[in-house]
Parts: sequence; C-alpha cells; structure tokens
Amino acid sequence: MRDVAIIGIGQTPVEEHWGKSLRHLGHDAIMAAMRDAGIETADALYVGNMLSGELGGQQHVGALLADFVGLRGIEAMKIEAACASGAAALRVGLMAVASGMHDVVLVCGVEKMTDAVGDEVTSGLASAADQEYEVSQGISFVGLNALLMRRYMYQFDIKKEYFAGFAVNAHRNGANNPYAMFRSPITEATYLKAGMIADPVNLMDSSPVCDGAACVVLAPAELYRSKVKARILASAVAIDSLAIHDRRDPLALDAVTVSSQKAYAQARMTPADIHLFEAHDAFSIMAALSLEGAGFAPRGAGVYMASEGEIGIHGRLPISTMGGLKSRGHPVGATGIYQVIEVVEQLTGAAGANQVSGATVGMAQNIGGSGATVITHILGAA
Amino acid sequence: MRDVAIIGIGQTPVEEHWGKSLRHLGHDAIMAAMRDAGIETADALYVGNMLSGELGGQQHVGALLADFVGLRGIEAMKIEAACASGAAALRVGLMAVASGMHDVVLVCGVEKMTDAVGDEVTSGLASAADQEYEVSQGISFVGLNALLMRRYMYQFDIKKEYFAGFAVNAHRNGANNPYAMFRSPITEATYLKAGMIADPVNLMDSSPVCDGAACVVLAPAELYRSKVKARILASAVAIDSLAIHDRRDPLALDAVTVSSQKAYAQARMTPADIHLFEAHDAFSIMAALSLEGAGFAPRGAGVYMASEGEIGIHGRLPISTMGGLKSRGHPVGATGIYQVIEVVEQLTGAAGANQVSGATVGMAQNIGGSGATVITHILGAA
Repeated sequence: MRDVAIIGIGQTPVEEHWGKSLRHLGHDAIMAAMRDAGIETADALYVGNMLSGELGGQQHVGALLADFVGLRGIEAMKIEAACASGAAALRVGLMAVASGMHDVVLVCGVEKMTDAVGDEVTSGLASAADQEYEVSQGISFVGLNALLMRRYMYQFDIKKEYFAGFAVNAHRNGANNPYAMFRSPITEATYLKAGMIADPVNLMDSSPVCDGAACVVLAPAELYRSKVKARILASAVAIDSLAIHDRRDPLALDAVTVSSQKAYAQARMTPADIHLFEAHDAFSIMAALSLEGAGFAPRGAGVYMASEGEIGIHGRLPISTMGGLKSRGHPVGATGIYQVIEVVEQLTGAAGANQVSGATVGMAQNIGGSGATVITHILGAA
Repeated sequence: MRDVAIIGIGQTPVEEHWGKSLRHLGHDAIMAAMRDAGIETADALYVGNMLSGELGGQQHVGALLADFVGLRGIEAMKIEAACASGAAALRVGLMAVASGMHDVVLVCGVEKMTDAVGDEVTSGLASAADQEYEVSQGISFVGLNALLMRRYMYQFDIKKEYFAGFAVNAHRNGANNPYAMFRSPITEATYLKAGMIADPVNLMDSSPVCDGAACVVLAPAELYRSKVKARILASAVAIDSLAIHDRRDPLALDAVTVSSQKAYAQARMTPADIHLFEAHDAFSIMAALSLEGAGFAPRGAGVYMASEGEIGIHGRLPISTMGGLKSRGHPVGATGIYQVIEVVEQLTGAAGANQVSGATVGMAQNIGGSGATVITHILGAA
C-alpha cells in the first residue's frame, strides 16, 4: 500500500452563491487545486455531495464535473454518506492512490443548498436520519440534535450557557478566514440572546445553510516528494445506527469512538499527539459529544472544553481553527474537504492569524447524520 | 496491488416489491451473499444506489444497510454514478481490497423505484442527464434515447425491425432466470406491435421500472483461494459529457470505447477473448451502440448483431445471458451488480439452461446516463 500525500488544495468562499450553480462551484475549487498542485490533468475525480439530486434534480455529478473541468475520459463518481460525504470521497481517493490504480486523483466536495424552495433543505437534511423510524414521525434534523442537547443537559446537569464557548471560538477563528461565511466575532451575550430554532438549539448552536466547494489533489508521496503539503497518516470510517433511539446510549457516539480509535491505531498515536482537531461542529452538542468520543474529554465533560484556554488557537487542543462548520459554514457534502484543507493550511504554516504554532499533526473528523457515519483523517506535516 | 476475487453472490428477484422497503431488499441480498461466501462479518459495505434520496427521502443508505444487517462499527458509504452506480460501488470495493485496506468487503446494489408517485421516477431518471442543458428543455431520459435511436436509423439507414432481436434474445434468456422480472419469451411480432413510448422507442425497446438488490463479496484471491468463484481481471471507468449535444459524435459512445480499451489492456485481452458480454441494454439503441463502442461490431453495424446466431446463448458473443436489463429488469443502482453476478454464474457453470458452454472470461458493462459514465469489468473463472 503506497503512502498518500496531499499535493494541492483549492476552495471557494462559503456563502450564498446566487450567481453560481453546482458545476461552477465545483469547477472553481478543482481548478484552484490543480493550479496549486501545478498539474494539468488527473486520473480520476471523486466527488463528495449529498443533495444534488433532491435540491438540483441533478445526479451523476462525478461525470458532470469531470467533463466541465475538461477531463473527459477519466474516471469519476460521486460518494455519499450524508454530511460525511466529503471525507468519504477523500477515503475513496486515498484507496485509489494507495492501491496503485491511479497516481493523481482529485477529490472535490461540493454542495449547492441555497437554490432550494420551501422546506426542501429541511427535508433534504432529514434524509441523513432514518426516514422510516425518525423522519416519518415529523422530526427534523435540527430537532434530533435538540433532543440530544436536552438529554445531555439533563443527564450531566449542564446549563445552556456552558455551550457558548464553541460558537464564540468558531466565530473568533472564522473572522480571520477569507473563505468563511461569517466573519464577525461574537460574544457570549450574542450566543445567549440568539433566536431559538428547536429548543434548546439556538441560531448560534447551528451551522448555516450555504454553498461551497473544496478540492484536494492526492498523489503517491514517494513519486511527488517535492510537492507534498501533508501526508495522510490515518483514514478510518465507522458506522452506527441512523436512528438515535436504536443506539446503545444516545449520548455516546460509538462511531466517533470506533473511527477515532481505528485512526489512532493506524497513525500509532494517542489523542495527546493531536495538535489540532477540526471537529464536526454542525451543532454545539455535536462538538461536545465528538470531543468526548474521540478521547479528548471524559463523558459529560466535552462541554467544559468550550473555553479559549482549551479550544482556542493557543489552547490545549485548538478546534475549528478556521471557523469550523459554525462560522466557515457547512455546505454539507463539501465540509469534509474544507476540514482537511484547513488542517493542511495549519500544517504548512498558511493559517495566518489563526496559525497553531508548531502544528505538525492535525485530525479532521466528518460526521454524517447524528453520528451514524464518522470518518476520521489524521494528517502529518510534509 | 492484490488480486481480488468474488467469493459470494446474492440477489433478490427483480420485481415490484410492494412488501419490502429498500432496507429489506438490501438486507436480503447481503445476507444471501454472506451465506454464499460462508462468512459472518465483513470489513466494509459499499452500496450502489441512485434514487433513494429523490424517491424515498432517504440518503445515507451505506450506514443504514450496514446497521440493518448487524454490522455496526464497520465502514460503509454509498456510491452514485446514475445507472452505473452498481459497478461504481464494485470499483470502490475492489480498490479497498486491492489496496490492502480491507480483506472482506460487501458490495451491494439496491434500488426501490416502485414506491414513487406521479412523475417522480421519470424526473429521477432524468437526473442522470444534464439538468441545466437537457432536462430543463423538457426532455425525459427515454426521450434522449429516442433521439439517439432516430438519428442512428437515419444515419445508417436502419429499419426499426432490425432492433427486434435484442428484446427477443433478452426475453428468451430471462425466461430461464428465476430472478428475472419478465419470464415470458416474446417474438418479433410482439416487438413490432408494442406500444410506442417515445417514438421510435417502444415498450419492448425499454427496460422496466422495478425493485431489486444484488450483492457480491470481495476478498483477496490469495487469502481466500478455496472460496474463489471468479477473479476480477480488469476494472475501468471512463466519462463523457452528460449532455449528448456536447459530444464529439452523438452516435459514438466514446466512454464505452475508452472504458473497454482500458479494461482490455488491464486484462491483456482483445474483444475476441470475451466469451460473453453483459451489455447495458436499458434501451435497444444502447445495446447496439455499446456493441460498437466495445469493439464487437463496426460503426453502424451493432444492430446487425441482434440475431440468435450472434448474441444468443450459443451465438458468437452471447449477451444479456440471464435476461439483461430488458427482461431481468433494471433497478438502476443495482443493475451493475446483477450483471456481475450473472457473469459469475456463467463462469461457475451455474447458469442452468442459459449456460454458455466453456465460458471462462466474461465482461460486464454498466452505463450511467446516455453513455456519460461507462464502467467495464472483465471477470475470469477461478
């Protein structure tokens, strides 16, 4: 199995891209990544995307994008694992290069969410949950997260304001990321007076509906030595039941634990070796639960990490270093690639004001549904 | 790169499964394949599926199925390439085993099309075509195939009845396949009086809307020597533009040619070495064009192979040996796996009345859209 490196990155700003369709967003990210890598062609394109069918009436976006960037004849396909589609596509690209089937592979995450009408986005996102046992009862995806957050507050005697630090940290970091959707810092007061969406989840607990695309170029580390930006040290997927009521314990994200442990084993590391963690903070409760599942905090104590000293850029374990899903934005199928690009920026010293000093190992974790698919990548500096 | 073998197969009958949802169909195929392989667990599940989001409001079917068959904690994801989703998932499973990342991998194609209402299936299938440049003009997927068929008849001076042999062959073979949807032979007269759908495409030129699931178990040939049913000798993907008007020549399926040539090169074979060909006969015109693109017939002459002496079980190049998409049925995301299972049946002497005598090499070709994604697998006997 060959060692695989990231040799190029490209991303569009995350925003409401009214002037660009899915294919244009994908094009912009792919071309930027190819320019960054200094390559003019590739052997394959794997696209992470969740909602192009429901929201755009367009499936088959693998071939669509490969053709649109001028790569007719290559291999292309789309990979879907709900909000973990981006990291799932990365995993397939990794297997293509590691196996020796391809040398230079593009992995692009892309999502166009803002062209939808009515409740299409709410319905689309709910398709990450169990349609027959959860959604048919009328609950939305935000509602499921609200149930988890309420249960967490009850079981561990947590006050709502304890969560504020996740949003404050994300917005502080996003303010310095030119690709982030929200670039205004917020205070705890902003958090506390934010409008309620599904009690106790408020607007500042939630990542936004948005558009964006991000792309990385993968290649065998050995063959592209001079271009290596970061090495993929570990890549691991674990699944759990979609339906939360079916799990061993709704507040224990077992797939986070299994996926993280597989990744630590591959990289021969422990949580203490991770210099920064791009967490899947689609909701504040997901940030807390994933910190616990990944071994950074004990059960019921993830929320106590929501302070600058813990998760800030100069904290014990910086998370969401470029704004996370909350502030950079969460174009669902693209998020996994944005996370990995942000780890690469940190490992190459390109994170500007948000640089985590001395970072040589970073972890990105992309979650589909409320913890049903968890994909962990650990990257190391070149 | 490790050699990869198929060590188990499982399939549901293709029909209108009113009593089973997508997860039950997937379950049945996966359990059948695991029983066939004599295994009780697996490292990963890759699911080929196209329409679960649009028709069932259910994405995330990788994790859904893995959990439903009792494999919590493993890797799972969905792969989509329109009607080539099944073969695309097989390709990912192949990379997982070839790379050494996993040993035992399940690849399941599943589609539930008959629970839809109104024009949902027509809209869903049209999402394989270019939404912005084709579908928005009002054309359906059948309509696109009708344009191709009309142009073919005009350009090569072909009469409609020349195509009859494709449907006659498919139904003759499907009659002996217990998993086929349509098990009644038809005659040329049946073909000629069939109702028109989109002139010149009639009902007997078209594969049906249906439900089904099929699963194969992959493993390293070396480690599972005693269980090997067939070896994967080649696997190749090529893409072309989704929009037919954007192609070099609408009647030359370039992606068929490129994908086939890549596969022949990998297997060190020529078309003459192929003992049977599971063609993607979603429409008669696709059968004719893919025979040409894959090198079995010259340009404009694919339709002349539509006779028992050419494509019948005892013909020069048997195609659609278990009924093909036309008679076995075309549950879109599952088709690529059904095709591969049928090649395995031929290579293991398990094809019953349809056995191609002495078959040791078979090719399956799965097409997404009107030739925008083409995935070719060549299998060899154990």
